[in-house]
Amino acid sequence: MSLLVWGSIALDSVETPQARRDDVLGGSAVFFSYAASYFAPVRLVGDVGEDWPEEHTRLLQSRKIDTSGLRIVPGEKTFRWTGKYQPNMNDRETLEVHLNVFGKFDPVLSDELRRSRFLFLGNGSPVVQMKVLDQMSDTTLVVADTMDLWINIQHDELMQLLKRVDGLVLNDSEARLLTGDENLVRAGHKVRKMGPKFVVIKKGEHGAMFFSEHETYVMPAYPTPDVIDPTGAGDSFAGGMMGYLAQQGNFEPKSLKRALAYGTLVASFNVEDFSLDRMKRIERADLDRRMAEYETMLSF
Amino acid sequence: MSLLVWGSIALDSVETPQARRDDVLGGSAVFFSYAASYFAPVRLVGDVGEDWPEEHTRLLQSRKIDTSGLRIVPGEKTFRWTGKYQPNMNDRETLEVHLNVFGKFDPVLSDELRRSRFLFLGNGSPVVQMKVLDQMSDTTLVVADTMDLWINIQHDELMQLLKRVDGLVLNDSEARLLTGDENLVRAGHKVRKMGPKFVVIKKGEHGAMFFSEHETYVMPAYPTPDVIDPTGAGDSFAGGMMGYLAQQGNFEPKSLKRALAYGTLVASFNVEDFSLDRMKRIERADLDRRMAEYETMLSF
Repeated sequence: MSLLVWGSIALDSVETPQARRDDVLGGSAVFFSYAASYFAPVRLVGDVGEDWPEEHTRLLQSRKIDTSGLRIVPGEKTFRWTGKYQPNMNDRETLEVHLNVFGKFDPVLSDELRRSRFLFLGNGSPVVQMKVLDQMSDTTLVVADTMDLWINIQHDELMQLLKRVDGLVLNDSEARLLTGDENLVRAGHKVRKMGPKFVVIKKGEHGAMFFSEHETYVMPAYPTPDVIDPTGAGDSFAGGMMGYLAQQGNFEPKSLKRALAYGTLVASFNVEDFSLDRMKRIERADLDRRMAEYETMLSF
Repeated sequence: MSLLVWGSIALDSVETPQARRDDVLGGSAVFFSYAASYFAPVRLVGDVGEDWPEEHTRLLQSRKIDTSGLRIVPGEKTFRWTGKYQPNMNDRETLEVHLNVFGKFDPVLSDELRRSRFLFLGNGSPVVQMKVLDQMSDTTLVVADTMDLWINIQHDELMQLLKRVDGLVLNDSEARLLTGDENLVRAGHKVRKMGPKFVVIKKGEHGAMFFSEHETYVMPAYPTPDVIDPTGAGDSFAGGMMGYLAQQGNFEPKSLKRALAYGTLVASFNVEDFSLDRMKRIERADLDRRMAEYETMLSF
């Protein structure tokens, strides 16, 4: 089934202890789309500025991603993020953020995009996330991402959003912030009681945790020795997860669990190079090979 | 097969954000022994002082732990540790350490103890760990624990020890310190190349990683919402692991993997109360029930 994602489309500058890349393709909706494209038809919605390199659109289209919702806004600049990773490659510092066109997004979706059955609301203001959601006509599954900024400055709006989504994806520190509970198992269920049917807590190199009314489980990250750039790990995780669910056409417990595993594996590839460079070199078969390894790893 | 453990026997004072306990039973060899006793006959070697409450010996004996190597040294005091946990329950501060009798240990094992086939060298000076190892007559498996202190001040001795053990258990920050590598997958294999056939890196609430020549895998921690006191988690993990291996009588890959899973589960019970209080209330059947849940959790 069709999967629509709204989120940031960015030009990133990334510094790690080993290397640096400037103005490379990034943004939550981009990592998400590319990761999801291994599984299902993806529709990308988001704004960029006049500085947007056309080759990036062609790259997304090469994965059959529908870019009809990618709008080049005259007189604007693309969202830019500059970050630096600590030696542990898990903690990072944001050096610069220029929201540019991303800060002014006011989406109007075409009729076709509105009819998408699976929706992922990438990290952004819950007010804008709801503006996207308001336009959808018949969704099967709606999942949102969020971050500390919105928990702090748009708490009430976020609470409204949580009552309207099926799932929420957030990271461990955000789950602790949102609930005031340091124990992630309790925090996960507390977030769930704020509205979503299920909650996924991302723990970076330590994997992800899943919470629904009847299930609590953990998926470890795939242990890769080649962590080059963690940027987009969470977004490619969400993309793999939602892509697999859209492919299955449901979010039954069994589908969800396998979706989390695929999300884990796409993310494990994504961190093995800068920007989308590692994902560009893999096909669905590479994911399935790593899945077989992953299943063996978790069997005893 | 018989399993011998040498390590600290302590009286701990523990403060968590919720509660505090003074002078409770602790020490690496104690948590280890109790955890291992669900699986195999355990022999405990270590010194205590005249202040040692006899009831603690009886508790260990109630689990059929052989305490013939537990020596009460006249004129000495038992090792004491005082620690305080941060709200995240993963980071802790050591407020006081009184090595007392533990700092003077010079082991002389009885002939029967020397004939133990499985040996665990709890965290302590590698010099003393080797003094224990020197006395063993015919071991099947030798595994050691260590910590940052010995990596820093007895590096050469630790390197000697590593060439003589089959396995090493250490935590994530120690693995990074020992290898200078921030990536745990690379760090695990670097430690392995220092001597041990296999290495287990403990990651606290995030589980454990395993490294041998042909295998690399991760086991997530069992997601318990009831983390009351993490003291002894690593030692009960090692105890469950070694106990299961001693029960199997080998350390083949299949046994090792299941051993890590049992270690994970004993540790998950151990953190659910202070000191040994939670372990005191479980039997092997409780471990097997949680194992069934854990296997379901990791299947998809």
